[in-house]
Amino acid sequence: MNSAAGQELTGACIIAQSGGPTSVINASVFGAVRAALDCPQITQVLGAEYGIKGVLNDRLIDFGQEDPKELEYLLNTPSSELGSVRYKLKDPEDDATDYRRILEIFRKYDVRYFFLIGGNDSMDTCNKVSRFMASSGYECRIIGIPKTIDNDLFGTDHCPGYASAAKFIATTCMEIYKDATVYETGMVTVIEIMGRHAGWLTAAASLASMKGCGPDLIFLPERVFSMEYFLRRVKEIYAVKRNVIAAVSEGIHDSEGRFISEYASSSQEKDSFGHTQLGGVAAILADAAKRETGAKVRGIELSLLQRCAAHCASETDVIEAAEAGRRAVLGAVGGVTGKMVAFRRGEGDRYVCHMDLIDLDKVANYEKKFPDEWINGSGDGILPAFYDYALPLIQGDRKIPTEDALPRFARLKKVFVE
Amino acid sequence: MNSAAGQELTGACIIAQSGGPTSVINASVFGAVRAALDCPQITQVLGAEYGIKGVLNDRLIDFGQEDPKELEYLLNTPSSELGSVRYKLKDPEDDATDYRRILEIFRKYDVRYFFLIGGNDSMDTCNKVSRFMASSGYECRIIGIPKTIDNDLFGTDHCPGYASAAKFIATTCMEIYKDATVYETGMVTVIEIMGRHAGWLTAAASLASMKGCGPDLIFLPERVFSMEYFLRRVKEIYAVKRNVIAAVSEGIHDSEGRFISEYASSSQEKDSFGHTQLGGVAAILADAAKRETGAKVRGIELSLLQRCAAHCASETDVIEAAEAGRRAVLGAVGGVTGKMVAFRRGEGDRYVCHMDLIDLDKVANYEKKFPDEWINGSGDGILPAFYDYALPLIQGDRKIPTEDALPRFARLKKVFVE
Repeated sequence: MNSAAGQELTGACIIAQSGGPTSVINASVFGAVRAALDCPQITQVLGAEYGIKGVLNDRLIDFGQEDPKELEYLLNTPSSELGSVRYKLKDPEDDATDYRRILEIFRKYDVRYFFLIGGNDSMDTCNKVSRFMASSGYECRIIGIPKTIDNDLFGTDHCPGYASAAKFIATTCMEIYKDATVYETGMVTVIEIMGRHAGWLTAAASLASMKGCGPDLIFLPERVFSMEYFLRRVKEIYAVKRNVIAAVSEGIHDSEGRFISEYASSSQEKDSFGHTQLGGVAAILADAAKRETGAKVRGIELSLLQRCAAHCASETDVIEAAEAGRRAVLGAVGGVTGKMVAFRRGEGDRYVCHMDLIDLDKVANYEKKFPDEWINGSGDGILPAFYDYALPLIQGDRKIPTEDALPRFARLKKVFVE
Repeated sequence: MNSAAGQELTGACIIAQSGGPTSVINASVFGAVRAALDCPQITQVLGAEYGIKGVLNDRLIDFGQEDPKELEYLLNTPSSELGSVRYKLKDPEDDATDYRRILEIFRKYDVRYFFLIGGNDSMDTCNKVSRFMASSGYECRIIGIPKTIDNDLFGTDHCPGYASAAKFIATTCMEIYKDATVYETGMVTVIEIMGRHAGWLTAAASLASMKGCGPDLIFLPERVFSMEYFLRRVKEIYAVKRNVIAAVSEGIHDSEGRFISEYASSSQEKDSFGHTQLGGVAAILADAAKRETGAKVRGIELSLLQRCAAHCASETDVIEAAEAGRRAVLGAVGGVTGKMVAFRRGEGDRYVCHMDLIDLDKVANYEKKFPDEWINGSGDGILPAFYDYALPLIQGDRKIPTEDALPRFARLKKVFVE
């Protein structure tokens, strides 16, 4: 690891975004860009188009040419304004082609700072690039900035992007509850929420239940899902209330590890990381519940909305995301490399979020599951300990700038350097 | 028609909600309840549980026993707080059983005012009850209060509920655009929006396009849908942009009148009014686009969210919905009956909404389609004349009351009268 604490290093920086969109990944870009532009050691602030691909393809925009006011709009612009990519770098021991190309581009623009905003896979990318640069003797400081709605990054109390998604999910579940319980005639509603392996997002539906307007049943991928048990519980609740709402993670699976989404005949596709593309669980469970109860049923996928609903963002999340970007820049300029910005919750009753820089080694490729002790005994509900964890994160309604009563997103010029 | 202008009539009133939920139907309840409670001629303010069923079943709550503060929370509580119903009264000439029961209940509580908040079917109910009461010689003033996200009520510039749904749809389409265009690898996204016969809601997606972040293609049920044309256009746009977003009404149908949603094998169900239950168009079109282009595709149903997302309500809509409730009460107390509150847009550049009382006869069972002249020549886009119509309606961000950073919905005691 290239350790150079205290040593002054002057050159350009590249900021890149990777992995799936969130409501606040651009807030981290803003935090990093703003800090970098203000930093005398950083001679040019570049942004990579489509993540690491933008480096490989020499597609880099110059943030110095953007209107500072437009940059501020990034705070409320969802998804990845620079474009993102799902591209897994090979191990440099197996094939160093990409790394050599990255080094070439770094040399071309005298890039001495690299900031990658992303999740697990991105931290792995950060780690590999960091190690390669160190072994090449090219001095470059690399810091990862966490983001993922999945909240499954290791070593950090929570991840930027999670809170806004959680707030949208909880708010939406409350609204769906109001809608789904409007008729006397009864209904079974199944809400499908993102999360392949970690149930953090689905657990957020329990905040609606806490308010008395939420799911009766919540199933996370951390526990084995039994269709038999699900139908039994639906029948029991339906008999009493004539209305059942269940929230399920897309990634729920049976005792043999088979995804419930695979119960449908449709062929499964895999993304470029080899993850199975999930979806359709809500429809499958709603159909099964219909056969069992004869009730009117509805399957609802929150789909992309849960990760890009910036109009419902958590103010806390936006502020922390921007601050994470800023801390990455300040840390790197201060001499740190091979680290990720991590959030540490302060002790005491009042929520305080401290930011540390932790080894990428400790983060990359580990997944932080939803704590088993926050799931109830029968595996169909979430315990109040989670509320204490989640509520501080969703605080604050973001007053988003609008134009014609619609969100005013950033309009960057995106001038590419040559 | 019982015309009693100027004549003082003292007695109880019943307020009922009918049809599908919207974000602001409870705002109309608030407007009506508040006005009725303040009105010396109205001796008791009752609310019917589950629409007209609550009258038939003698399930009436007493609004006089509610905390006024809780009533105010109705302004931001989506769906129908009193419960709703889809129940079509028979023609009184065929079977007057229900009408006689309604009269019995009206007599029991000395009900002299009846306000029904709903859409087409509800205005039909209002009209029939109104005629029956007139023919029975029971003096009772009946006024309909419009609501429908579909915006298809005849005789009114627009309907409460539409604007909030339109605002959510436009906002969400902008956010989905940001999400769906994040990768270089290309994608075809199909967004399915509510609307069986009228395309008003789907047209709202064009407001996102107006902002440069919306669908490339928009298909309404007012025009015949051709799968061949759709695929050709998707291919053309995909070839140029590598990214296509289409917004379609659930009710799009081919030249033979067959719903595109019926192209899937799943059996169609009908609701209690004999309407075919629609859904699944997004998935069908996304699949077809995948076969044609080989692109990654995504089908997104906005589902219930579009009609109950009170967190994204239009302030204008909330205010107008409450005012419609108030005007109904003031009109009835002033002697009017057999009417519906209708919105009339003032002349001139500045948006002004006037409220009239129009004959229920003119409203019931007519559907107001999306104007053909606002659809482009090829039937795959919306013209700017619609923006002028829609933009004033979605103005104003509602500052919703929250608790734990989540919506604070009304918590009514619901004390039933006997």
